Amino acid sequence: MRKDHRNINELREVTIETDYVKHPEGSVLISFGDTKVICNASVEDRVPPFLRGQGKGWITAEYAMLPRATEQRNIRESSKGKVSGRTMEIQRLIGRALRAVVDLDQIGERTLWVDCDVIQADGGTRTASITGAFVAVVLAFGKLVKNGTLKKMPVNDFLTAISVGVLPDGSEILDLCYEEDSKAHVDMNVVMTGQGEFVELQGTGEEATFSMPQLQKMLSLAQEGVDQLIQHQENAIGEWADVIRGKQTSAVNDKS
Amino acid sequence: MRKDHRNINELREVTIETDYVKHPEGSVLISFGDTKVICNASVEDRVPPFLRGQGKGWITAEYAMLPRATEQRNIRESSKGKVSGRTMEIQRLIGRALRAVVDLDQIGERTLWVDCDVIQADGGTRTASITGAFVAVVLAFGKLVKNGTLKKMPVNDFLTAISVGVLPDGSEILDLCYEEDSKAHVDMNVVMTGQGEFVELQGTGEEATFSMPQLQKMLSLAQEGVDQLIQHQENAIGEWADVIRGKQTSAVNDKS
Amino acid sequence: MRKDHRNINELREVTIETDYVKHPEGSVLISFGDTKVICNASVEDRVPPFLRGQGKGWITAEYAMLPRATEQRNIRESSKGKVSGRTMEIQRLIGRALRAVVDLDQIGERTLWVDCDVIQADGGTRTASITGAFVAVVLAFGKLVKNGTLKKMPVNDFLTAISVGVLPDGSEILDLCYEEDSKAHVDMNVVMTGQGEFVELQGTGEEATFSMPQLQKMLSLAQEGVDQLIQHQENAIGEWADVIRGKQTSAVNDKS
Amino acid sequence: MRKDHRNINELREVTIETDYVKHPEGSVLISFGDTKVICNASVEDRVPPFLRGQGKGWITAEYAMLPRATEQRNIRESSKGKVSGRTMEIQRLIGRALRAVVDLDQIGERTLWVDCDVIQADGGTRTASITGAFVAVVLAFGKLVKNGTLKKMPVNDFLTAISVGVLPDGSEILDLCYEEDSKAHVDMNVVMTGQGEFVELQGTGEEATFSMPQLQKMLSLAQEGVDQLIQHQENAIGEWADVIRGKQTSAVNDKS
Amino acid sequence: MRKDHRNINELREVTIETDYVKHPEGSVLISFGDTKVICNASVEDRVPPFLRGQGKGWITAEYAMLPRATEQRNIRESSKGKVSGRTMEIQRLIGRALRAVVDLDQIGERTLWVDCDVIQADGGTRTASITGAFVAVVLAFGKLVKNGTLKKMPVNDFLTAISVGVLPDGSEILDLCYEEDSKAHVDMNVVMTGQGEFVELQGTGEEATFSMPQLQKMLSLAQEGVDQLIQHQENAIGEWADVIRGKQTSAVNDKS
Amino acid sequence: MRKDHRNINELREVTIETDYVKHPEGSVLISFGDTKVICNASVEDRVPPFLRGQGKGWITAEYAMLPRATEQRNIRESSKGKVSGRTMEIQRLIGRALRAVVDLDQIGERTLWVDCDVIQADGGTRTASITGAFVAVVLAFGKLVKNGTLKKMPVNDFLTAISVGVLPDGSEILDLCYEEDSKAHVDMNVVMTGQGEFVELQGTGEEATFSMPQLQKMLSLAQEGVDQLIQHQENAIGEWADVIRGKQTSAVNDKS
Repeated sequence: MRKDHRNINELREVTIETDYVKHPEGSVLISFGDTKVICNASVEDRVPPFLRGQGKGWITAEYAMLPRATEQRNIRESSKGKVSGRTMEIQRLIGRALRAVVDLDQIGERTLWVDCDVIQADGGTRTASITGAFVAVVLAFGKLVKNGTLKKMPVNDFLTAISVGVLPDGSEILDLCYEEDSKAHVDMNVVMTGQGEFVELQGTGEEATFSMPQLQKMLSLAQEGVDQLIQHQENAIGEWADVIRGKQTSAVNDKS
Repeated sequence: MRKDHRNINELREVTIETDYVKHPEGSVLISFGDTKVICNASVEDRVPPFLRGQGKGWITAEYAMLPRATEQRNIRESSKGKVSGRTMEIQRLIGRALRAVVDLDQIGERTLWVDCDVIQADGGTRTASITGAFVAVVLAFGKLVKNGTLKKMPVNDFLTAISVGVLPDGSEILDLCYEEDSKAHVDMNVVMTGQGEFVELQGTGEEATFSMPQLQKMLSLAQEGVDQLIQHQENAIGEWADVIRGKQTSAVNDKS
Repeated sequence: MRKDHRNINELREVTIETDYVKHPEGSVLISFGDTKVICNASVEDRVPPFLRGQGKGWITAEYAMLPRATEQRNIRESSKGKVSGRTMEIQRLIGRALRAVVDLDQIGERTLWVDCDVIQADGGTRTASITGAFVAVVLAFGKLVKNGTLKKMPVNDFLTAISVGVLPDGSEILDLCYEEDSKAHVDMNVVMTGQGEFVELQGTGEEATFSMPQLQKMLSLAQEGVDQLIQHQENAIGEWADVIRGKQTSAVNDKS
Repeated sequence: MRKDHRNINELREVTIETDYVKHPEGSVLISFGDTKVICNASVEDRVPPFLRGQGKGWITAEYAMLPRATEQRNIRESSKGKVSGRTMEIQRLIGRALRAVVDLDQIGERTLWVDCDVIQADGGTRTASITGAFVAVVLAFGKLVKNGTLKKMPVNDFLTAISVGVLPDGSEILDLCYEEDSKAHVDMNVVMTGQGEFVELQGTGEEATFSMPQLQKMLSLAQEGVDQLIQHQENAIGEWADVIRGKQTSAVNDKS
Repeated sequence: MRKDHRNINELREVTIETDYVKHPEGSVLISFGDTKVICNASVEDRVPPFLRGQGKGWITAEYAMLPRATEQRNIRESSKGKVSGRTMEIQRLIGRALRAVVDLDQIGERTLWVDCDVIQADGGTRTASITGAFVAVVLAFGKLVKNGTLKKMPVNDFLTAISVGVLPDGSEILDLCYEEDSKAHVDMNVVMTGQGEFVELQGTGEEATFSMPQLQKMLSLAQEGVDQLIQHQENAIGEWADVIRGKQTSAVNDKS
Repeated sequence: MRKDHRNINELREVTIETDYVKHPEGSVLISFGDTKVICNASVEDRVPPFLRGQGKGWITAEYAMLPRATEQRNIRESSKGKVSGRTMEIQRLIGRALRAVVDLDQIGERTLWVDCDVIQADGGTRTASITGAFVAVVLAFGKLVKNGTLKKMPVNDFLTAISVGVLPDGSEILDLCYEEDSKAHVDMNVVMTGQGEFVELQGTGEEATFSMPQLQKMLSLAQEGVDQLIQHQENAIGEWADVIRGKQTSAVNDKS
């Protein structure tokens, strides 16, 4: 039994509040238990230099924590004058994951800026960020479809992320809180689509290793978590859920 | 009549939600209309180098905006690698203002870090930050008094801030929203104590000037706003309101 | 009686030496007692991006101290790799103040760079900078008028700045030297036009507060100082003094 | 058939030259085909602040490319003044991977700095770096064992890394060169021990996804590559190969 | 007799390996004894802003050391976020020296980037860099001549650099190794052309001075070293040696 | 004949004003024609980390220009956030030169900070800086001798610097002004002691070269200039001139 009485395959309570902040095209406050992240999606009418003139769009993400999102206060990255390696890793991951389910050709020469700001942290901030960012992105594109800027929703599938890990006693668990995460021998983040395909798989043994059977058990737990998270996303995006589910049926998402 | 039907001496709706985030010693979400700021006060058991060994404490503040707190998305200061002049001015102002009503000798060699993070901006972010930060600071010190770290509340008086200004038509108004602020000929921020003393006065004519009668009218409006803000603070800090009001009666706040 | 035998309403000796450095369009060495500042105004034939194509000009200021302008040597900001909050506050203040008395529409798409470099500091460096910068700006514009680049002097009024404060014994004084400034409970910088209008008012109680009567006494002292400083400026700008005084008479300076 | 006539499960030619540079305690030039990396391991007699006083050591890595290691010249990160997100990700990965097979308690309060400098790049620079860094680390520790600083070799198992991926035609391949990597739909880096345990697993679909069967096929290819790389490492570390192989037999590497 | 049994006028063993790295237009590994430098020359089809539209080219150099090129590991300049004064001095020197023997008008609007990366350091890294860079530059231009981009070799003369110095016992020596360099009272770097003209002369007494006769003795030693280095360069550049030697005969290199 | 009617071996007018700024231990305003530099020497009672505990002192220099010291306004290095290569070269040169004539063992664990700030530039700023800095350093040490901190003047000889060069017409000249410097084929800075020994010699051909006879002619001109500069220094340092001249006679300056 886990400290908060969850089963090994049980998510923490998940909530998704939409239209949280008024200015962004898409805005969400997502919580995975005590982890709370504001995910804002902003539309900019131009693309980075490497894409100019190709008629194609881009999605990029930034991630940050309030200094006192954590038990101990952290120094602001703006005060330090540079962004940490951990922050860079996470924001690159979020952007890459979102790009896997969006048809960038359909959005024209626009950039979607996705800001994930953690206001309270208790483990799983990157998975909550991806899961919430997906909703903010759908809402932002929905606004562009409704005002006629885009012809149709350019999102091809659902996208969710969840953590799994191995505790020191060898048991595999789903959705680690901070206390579990800090003790775990193995920590894995899994990003999946609504059709059960992988987008990202990042498993790490910090001063430890893991076997093939442990990997398989973790991936199975992750699949269980993803299925539940997609239901939360469907509720949050309302009418757009059917649109996206319709695409899954008609065509397998494929780069080619 | 103002755009949102307020009278010239009328504040926007003010709300103060305490214990907003779980980790900080004091945490507040304050709103002045659509301006929303998270104010967190964190206690650190040491002081900056210039104060070491003097048995005295320090209060310092940091201020930031989420990139999409504003109508147009702003570049993160951590991405730019430096903090803007505007941000520095505001965080120096917040820290200085708070130090005016706290007896730093009573808090020992501790630093109070006050983080004001604007999640939605509609004018008056610095005045909302100071007004909310005061509540977070009282709550943080209250926790230290209750757990025996401090003998008594080291806060000597209330502290609030409000903006006043002069519109192009020459009328003086209280608590400017963003649209009013961007048009105003004069913008003034007034920081006052519960006893009606000034802590800071910053009046600026951007490509314009103001006369002595205009100054007097603005200061009179500011006093009206301050009186109402103190009532909101009293409600938010509960039991500590009487403690602080008691100090006002018994002694004039004085540096000497 | 003050340490240097001045009365409370007495300025230190003020000198303004024009054409101090040969390259800038306007160049001044100003001294307020032992505070000495080189103020150089340079004309650049373009404006910052946010103003391009509007046919309007801009004035911006930079402020710095030589490392040994002060009693203790300071680390150069170029060595630290960043500009301090104090420096930013002062240079923003100087630029804003100058823009209040210059008609930016009349100077075309040009930027006036005003550099205030303190070579010796003894309190009041920001007020000396503004007072000297005004002279450098008038001289620079005068050169543009004489060579036919501008049709007429675009400066609408005089601009001067002076400090006032409250000593620990409660007395209000004019033009604080460093020793007075470091002890004062209240420090206020007042920027005024030749017609007695305020451009900036920045009053600060560092770990102290001030009352309305104290404010009024300080503003009255400031007015006395400003009147004398304008006479020094008139002598320094020579023929242009009448031109600017003529504008005062014919029209009130107004943004509208 | 692949462009360079390799089979899908075939590595490029691998060479490991030891004692490449004279100053470092361990120095290796490793090549995976045209990818060439200098891996230097340096011993420093102190640990980072977070470990001081715990009698435990640390391993950290830095990664860089010569500007012209690539087809197009890259700007130096020292000229840009900051390290890219990609570089940070890779150097964090290398350090984490090495720490998984070294008993940090056995090395005392020492830091092993591992520098991986790519002098020629053709895909797989991070996997070549890890594979070569392992050899440099064993050689550096070997020197410390021989001169009596350490009692025994603190490395518990072999450590190698290899890339696998999925080409646009759906075929899974081992050890991608640059041209393959730039076209691949899926790119996965696998870090494994000599006993076939995973240390890191990082699979990414850039604008694409991958299925469970594809994952399994890729992991199987990776295992084939790892087996061959370990033989190259055994040859390079000479006498230490038996010592490390002996540890594998006697005890499963485990964090607890 | 010197520590490594060299005579005072004897160079260390010099080797120049061409085509060391595959991507650059010109690539050389040069060694002066244990000092080893990779010199890569890259052609870019544009010039810096200050030269645009003049039909003229540019040569610029960057210099760096691997962290463990030296006895003690150095912190990477990319990690420190800035380039040291020593590095800047050296890279400015290399670029300036190369520009003295190349006819920039003949290369069109192109920039030659010369990267000198020290992989092992034992004194004389800047002189080895210049000597090796010259070869890389000739090879790069040779490639442009052969593929028809340039009509003829734009290099007018040979260019080599060597160090000379004065030991504490007063003796002048040629080509100082690190141990000699760290003890020397005077250190001088001489950059010369094939015709015996000076390009750069940088002599420094660190806490010491030198006389005119010492200067003359050092310059004479330098000339001896330069003569030998040119022979190594001739061997390395093959067919281009005659082309460059032919220019020497027909015309004195002159700026006018 | 030169543009300003000087002979080829004639210095511009040289003035040295002592006690220019009040706070520094030594302060000088030096001019070489229109080049004007404030040289301040500050004493700090500690040394850099690499010298701690050795009972020995240090001298270091910083160099900067006011933005409008030059014909075109330069961007402040503090605004750019980094110091240019040119600035670094010059400040390293000034520090190194001063250390050659000061007995660092005699000054105890103190650092002398020498700030050279160019307020007006017309060529030769680095030579004027060294020549003026020498005077500021002697005055600062003189103060320490007079107040008993030091037993005797630790300066062993005079130190001056001057520029020489070769014009496009092949003529060698002394003390180049900016216009001459920008056209010259060769630019050489010579730093010499009162006894005619060299401290630094930096000769550079920018896109040109120079011969041995040209070098000898330039060195001869430099010696003429140095002799005159020493007379200006003698006048400026007053009583200390005899002390330093006495040391020359009694002992050759030598590092050993």
